[in-house]
Amino acid sequence: MSDPVPASPGDSGATGRDAFLGGRVTIEQPLNGYRAGIDPVLLAASVPARAGQSVLELGCGAGTALLCLGRRIEGLELTGVELQPVYAELARRNAAANALAARIETADLAALPAAIRAERYDHVMFNPPYFDRGSGTRAEDPGREIALGESTPLADWVAVAARRLAPRGRLGVIHRAEQLPGLLAACHGRVGSITIRSLHPREGRPARLVLMSAIKGGRAALRIAAPLILHAGTHHGADGEDYTPAIRAVLRDAAELPSN
Amino acid sequence: MSDPVPASPGDSGATGRDAFLGGRVTIEQPLNGYRAGIDPVLLAASVPARAGQSVLELGCGAGTALLCLGRRIEGLELTGVELQPVYAELARRNAAANALAARIETADLAALPAAIRAERYDHVMFNPPYFDRGSGTRAEDPGREIALGESTPLADWVAVAARRLAPRGRLGVIHRAEQLPGLLAACHGRVGSITIRSLHPREGRPARLVLMSAIKGGRAALRIAAPLILHAGTHHGADGEDYTPAIRAVLRDAAELPSN
Repeated sequence: MSDPVPASPGDSGATGRDAFLGGRVTIEQPLNGYRAGIDPVLLAASVPARAGQSVLELGCGAGTALLCLGRRIEGLELTGVELQPVYAELARRNAAANALAARIETADLAALPAAIRAERYDHVMFNPPYFDRGSGTRAEDPGREIALGESTPLADWVAVAARRLAPRGRLGVIHRAEQLPGLLAACHGRVGSITIRSLHPREGRPARLVLMSAIKGGRAALRIAAPLILHAGTHHGADGEDYTPAIRAVLRDAAELPSN
Repeated sequence: MSDPVPASPGDSGATGRDAFLGGRVTIEQPLNGYRAGIDPVLLAASVPARAGQSVLELGCGAGTALLCLGRRIEGLELTGVELQPVYAELARRNAAANALAARIETADLAALPAAIRAERYDHVMFNPPYFDRGSGTRAEDPGREIALGESTPLADWVAVAARRLAPRGRLGVIHRAEQLPGLLAACHGRVGSITIRSLHPREGRPARLVLMSAIKGGRAALRIAAPLILHAGTHHGADGEDYTPAIRAVLRDAAELPSN
């Protein structure tokens, strides 16, 4: 899937190029560090942005979600914040390589640059890092360690996002299903009109991921939307490409996720 | 659906008899007050009890959930607590009429009888009352008013349930989907190993209800199980009886809900 790219001087390691949205977006990312899978693509597909609006991604990594969103909806004002300089630099290069204008700031969520703190965004999104608690192993690569390390509590992610949202602005989050209680608790008093959608690998299986959207100043009751099923059939097929039609449309044809 | 029964002296009004589990359970309940629909039947079907275990239902109303569970699994020790004397008395009569032994106490959750406070139960379940905030109308019947009135906060229901559970005992709750954040917050520090299952009226529709199970002393991560779909097809059919096979098996054949 990934074409190796020789490491350039100053990089922490070799990178590869991965294609997203049926080749509409190409992302250069480390071969051994944190690498985007489908999570950021689904996150980007869930954001109901319109041309002319502004979008801030917290923890944008190499820019996959931000650039997939920017490709699907042309004319957005894209801003990404990334703590790790290597990833922030990749995000800048990826924006340029995909001919998308994006402002990428290297910064900690707790100390955003003044220019970002002065702005209010129509959309804020994030795909928070996490540990795989099942494995318990420490990552070898320090970039991966930080990206997966939950060094910033989830409540801080939501709090920073809520402060950066314009009134009626929308928050979009994708996270591990097991983190739902913490995510909902973090939203309490900060954003409302929450919709949650569980993402199940197959029909009849527990959800691995959950998408959440919320509105700053929203007061509607929480909604549990119809779940999303990633793969058709009851078990993994031989060709490895058994996505359901709605998910295939998102991953291959840059479609928006249906909002139920 | 309901056969009117003449009001007996001392009752607050006329009652009717409704059949559940394909006629295996008959419940006498007020014609105008709070009347059980399918929620308590689904709750009872979600409790993985085994013969010989003890079950406590908080706010048991006329006994629908407790008696449906007692019918599905013979040999349970059934206890119900109900604040309103009229409903508690109906629950006692319903237990007798269905030939099931059940101890029904008339009590407030905040002041359980000493005999119940001295016990630990293998299962505690509840279907908390709620207002239909969309309608905003006050109920005419004071019994209905209390049953729908959320006079006891959700956190108190969970706290009382958790105190009554034996170690590794299981909590089962069915509630409005919009109450999920409060339900999860109430569980924090009291019960763990939470599984949530959303109940959607039809494929592709938002959930109206959510089933939650949890374990006292459980430490596993939250699971979002596969959702349950109540009705087949995309819209309401002419015969009004278009339940999906799993739900029909629960409602008509007294089956246990599949746990995914």
